[in-house]
Amino acid sequence: MPIDIPIYSLPTENRQVILARRPEGIPQATDFRISSAPLSPLLPGKMRIRNIYLSVDPAQRGWASAEANYSAPVAVGDPMRALAVGVVVESNDPDFHVGEYLYGWFGWQDYATVGAAQIILRATHDVPLTAFGGLLGINGVTAYLALTELGRPIAGDTLLVSTAGGSVGSFVGQLGRYFGCRTIGLTGGDGKVARCVARYGYDVAINYKSAELPQAISKVAPTGINIYFDNTGGAILDTVLRQMAVRGRIVQCGTASVGIWTPPPQGPRNEREILTRRLVWSGFVIFDHVAEYEAAASALAQLYKSGTLTYDVDVADSMESAPGAIASLYAGENAGKRLIYVG
Amino acid sequence: MPIDIPIYSLPTENRQVILARRPEGIPQATDFRISSAPLSPLLPGKMRIRNIYLSVDPAQRGWASAEANYSAPVAVGDPMRALAVGVVVESNDPDFHVGEYLYGWFGWQDYATVGAAQIILRATHDVPLTAFGGLLGINGVTAYLALTELGRPIAGDTLLVSTAGGSVGSFVGQLGRYFGCRTIGLTGGDGKVARCVARYGYDVAINYKSAELPQAISKVAPTGINIYFDNTGGAILDTVLRQMAVRGRIVQCGTASVGIWTPPPQGPRNEREILTRRLVWSGFVIFDHVAEYEAAASALAQLYKSGTLTYDVDVADSMESAPGAIASLYAGENAGKRLIYVG
Repeated sequence: MPIDIPIYSLPTENRQVILARRPEGIPQATDFRISSAPLSPLLPGKMRIRNIYLSVDPAQRGWASAEANYSAPVAVGDPMRALAVGVVVESNDPDFHVGEYLYGWFGWQDYATVGAAQIILRATHDVPLTAFGGLLGINGVTAYLALTELGRPIAGDTLLVSTAGGSVGSFVGQLGRYFGCRTIGLTGGDGKVARCVARYGYDVAINYKSAELPQAISKVAPTGINIYFDNTGGAILDTVLRQMAVRGRIVQCGTASVGIWTPPPQGPRNEREILTRRLVWSGFVIFDHVAEYEAAASALAQLYKSGTLTYDVDVADSMESAPGAIASLYAGENAGKRLIYVG
Repeated sequence: MPIDIPIYSLPTENRQVILARRPEGIPQATDFRISSAPLSPLLPGKMRIRNIYLSVDPAQRGWASAEANYSAPVAVGDPMRALAVGVVVESNDPDFHVGEYLYGWFGWQDYATVGAAQIILRATHDVPLTAFGGLLGINGVTAYLALTELGRPIAGDTLLVSTAGGSVGSFVGQLGRYFGCRTIGLTGGDGKVARCVARYGYDVAINYKSAELPQAISKVAPTGINIYFDNTGGAILDTVLRQMAVRGRIVQCGTASVGIWTPPPQGPRNEREILTRRLVWSGFVIFDHVAEYEAAASALAQLYKSGTLTYDVDVADSMESAPGAIASLYAGENAGKRLIYVG
């Protein structure tokens, strides 16, 4: 049953960040444009959401790309696919009510017109609303599920995380510590090294830009890496893979260090290392884990409220920052999960 | 309690295939020499074994190499490390009796002086003695354990095997079929293609040397490969990896197509494929699975006796063929598991 809200309170225009052309490699500000579109009356079964926080994620590079991927590419001319936190302002779905806060596939725009399938999570759990941009968003839940299911941490394991202070890595490090691992973070910059240790509890953090990485890793992990949680791929992966302990696990969660994959860039062959070290190298994409999402989010919320986990957000305050936000993320310019406040 | 055998019946000389120098890449005949060494009196707790069938295995390349590996390299001047089937001719270990047939780490030599730790399996199970050179040897047990534990076949899966008619691959294909998979074999040569289908029951076999491999695979596996059991690495792996189905499993069991790994040769980067296809790529080395060996061998013996599995051996009849046997194996010159009869 539609909820009766006076029609004059509802929006008729919707500002959107449109994918203006197909990016080559990492999407740049010039690949997008901001424009307004009229909002049509709400159809049965749908709801309208006023976005509050837009999420900026490394995975958006892949969504905007025409390369074979785990999801269909965003069409040129469409609003950019994105996660967001918003509030229901109109609903033709009896399961969702006006005033309810939700997290889901709401896109880079002021208003999302969605069905239940676009909702990931109700923004409850007694945590701040920004937590849904990261901790209880796909970043935190990815960290939790990928680490526990593919990394399989055992107390005493040495866990190494690339982009250790990033939107996923910062949770991987904290969770690894919670599971009894020795945690080593790789990050780019001395300020980030300090933050990884101070904020996310890494036992050691290494600035991969200034260190001789093979030596730096073997110095702090002389018996090898049991779990490598990789968000970068590329040269860092090449180095760490050759320092894995026997029966180590590599979790491939991102490939942020490589900008263009077509044609595939070359690197050292890894099959002999996989064989002789008996590694398990697995890819993780959160969209395979919809059924586990709610339970993981609940666990993360508990760990946050008990003081075990913390999170950082880096909030931009207008939609105008969205077009350049992905490139800024890949340049490592954010200090915490990048959100854009449009509320 | 030592078993009393008249000393005059026992050998005093032992012909051995000695690793004469450190091979570069695949060991060649000139890397070995055959010489005789005196046999010392048997020490307490040891036994002496008359070898009957010496095994020739691709893994011997790695054992003879000084590269980092899963086992210590064979020392130059030592007899070549090898599996063999033999009979106990003298025993100072009350658990093993003269006349008993055993399979284990007996080396390329006429007589092995070993302790219980070098025994892999008692050659019982009511099968021909040659079965311990392959079916119930590390080849068959590797096929069984690697396929079931890492490949995790589900009826209806498409299973692709490289070196499909080889000493491991021939069992992988037959076992895959037994588990309800559609089986595709890659092999080098039209004769081997025919044998893969006729002898090992592959649904399709492809001559990778003459086919346009990407097209040939996509034609017979349009929905992708669920399990890739890889014995070759290299260019074949590059192709198959890009035709894996989502959530496919790659079992790295050998890397026979690449001769030299130091420095590592280059190939296309795979981390993006692992991520977006959510692959699991695992290395298998049989020596991690000692505890499971006996049960796997029993299962294989049952499948052989029920007619589900067959095996082929290609027996050379003198120790003089041993020095060139590994290179011959890598050249694909054998038709069945290569054994050397020295009984």
